[in-house]
Amino acid sequence: MLRITEVGPRDGLQNEKTIIPTEDKVRFVDLLSECGFAEIEVSSFVSPKWVPQLGDAAEVFARIKRRPGVIYSALVPNEKGLEGAIAAKVDKIAVFTAASETFSLKNTNATIAQTLERFAPVIRKAKSQASSGDGIDKTGAGLPVRAYISCAVACPYEGPIAPERVRDVAARLIDLGVDEIDLGDTIGVATPDDVERLYDGLKGLLVPAQTTLHLHDTRGRALACAERAWRLGVRSFDSSCAGLGGCPYAPGAKGNVATEAIVGLFERLGERTDADQSRIAQASDFIIERRTVANS
Amino acid sequence: MLRITEVGPRDGLQNEKTIIPTEDKVRFVDLLSECGFAEIEVSSFVSPKWVPQLGDAAEVFARIKRRPGVIYSALVPNEKGLEGAIAAKVDKIAVFTAASETFSLKNTNATIAQTLERFAPVIRKAKSQASSGDGIDKTGAGLPVRAYISCAVACPYEGPIAPERVRDVAARLIDLGVDEIDLGDTIGVATPDDVERLYDGLKGLLVPAQTTLHLHDTRGRALACAERAWRLGVRSFDSSCAGLGGCPYAPGAKGNVATEAIVGLFERLGERTDADQSRIAQASDFIIERRTVANS
Repeated sequence: MLRITEVGPRDGLQNEKTIIPTEDKVRFVDLLSECGFAEIEVSSFVSPKWVPQLGDAAEVFARIKRRPGVIYSALVPNEKGLEGAIAAKVDKIAVFTAASETFSLKNTNATIAQTLERFAPVIRKAKSQASSGDGIDKTGAGLPVRAYISCAVACPYEGPIAPERVRDVAARLIDLGVDEIDLGDTIGVATPDDVERLYDGLKGLLVPAQTTLHLHDTRGRALACAERAWRLGVRSFDSSCAGLGGCPYAPGAKGNVATEAIVGLFERLGERTDADQSRIAQASDFIIERRTVANS
Repeated sequence: MLRITEVGPRDGLQNEKTIIPTEDKVRFVDLLSECGFAEIEVSSFVSPKWVPQLGDAAEVFARIKRRPGVIYSALVPNEKGLEGAIAAKVDKIAVFTAASETFSLKNTNATIAQTLERFAPVIRKAKSQASSGDGIDKTGAGLPVRAYISCAVACPYEGPIAPERVRDVAARLIDLGVDEIDLGDTIGVATPDDVERLYDGLKGLLVPAQTTLHLHDTRGRALACAERAWRLGVRSFDSSCAGLGGCPYAPGAKGNVATEAIVGLFERLGERTDADQSRIAQASDFIIERRTVANS
């Protein structure tokens, strides 16, 4: 069965120019909670200085209605962010690195090695944490940690990224104890063959079913990539309602692949998704209209 | 069989902020000519004052390599534009109106009735023209004319547009002698049910197979709409490589539905498309890279 992480409230809104009022974000997440997703990435506990769009993460977490069974996660850049996330009772955290040194430097002002050093205590603390949320099974393993590897196929500055580099970063993240590796085609250039090469490069380290694939749809190929990934065994995908987003650090990048499109693809392939397209459309219409209002 | 009009060079590039150099446009169209499309909307013979992005229409037409069997068309706003189009030996012209008065006024500075008045002599002249291009069958019926009806589902200013209004405009265009009605969901808000209502409204005037559907993918629903339209009998779709475009007059609108995505949809549905995805990817990669260069 398909597992969808709706990343619109975080990856989508972070990369939109418009700042959406807190109450609209809360309503957006509440609408998303009705859509049948396994996980919703709600916000980011990053300094509002860097990402003013998500400066209200704590308030959003305080005000959303949590639906049992749904994991409400947040991006966490450092220990301070983790404290905020724990105080907000997030169900799961996500950390962020890249397979490209240049992108890592431009995006997080740190080398890949430095991002991993920064994560080590974050992950240690998260794993020692009693889980607080409703959405996860209480295995005593602490807060689950997702680790993003951005530029897993190509970098806007360096061009194509060799699968070996992704494998190297993934291996180091696994050593640090993360629960989930999320492979991002950050600028949306992948072809299906690139996706296959990426997973070939991970053989012996990770099987496709142990990863999440995070596609952007800059060149209209995201669905073809998702289909190939599915055939390779990938079962977990990120997407954002209405294809919200883009990437201010990646010139020319468009938004995440639309949740509607991913769900539609798997419906056409005859796979079970548990996602409700009419509720997804409601959530998309809501946030697009609020964005239009906030813009005007 | 699916009929695709690739509108990236016109509707896509017109709505991108970046101005692409003429030689890159020529190369883009030449790459598109190898992709298996029935038609390529190459440019617009509109004043460079209004659309500087397409001010080089004549030069682009002069320099492209025309592939036999492909129709090379252009948008024409008025008689002066038609003269330019005829001089450039376009195979087909397109005129542009809307189902929304407000959008028509904001976009073309004319009421719907005024746009139709403006078209009447353009269409008359086009139909009296000996066809000059390679791409059309020489029936002696002059230059074929496509007529766009934008905002066929909703208007960014007026909201939902009743199907009766679309029907009314379509009827007047048919009276003027156009060959093809192209229904545009200009801001990309349609649901599959909206598409069905649109075609229900045309019953007795036009069957779905006599229309072209022009979808934008603002909310991730374009493929679901295309699939519904196909089931209703629509066989002709507009799309743009890589989903180029947007609409400066329609706040929040994203690009055209990506050609890659439309072709992928019909491949999955088991329908014949004649389109070559690897060549389409080459054309998309080329234009996205040139856009990035032009932007930097």
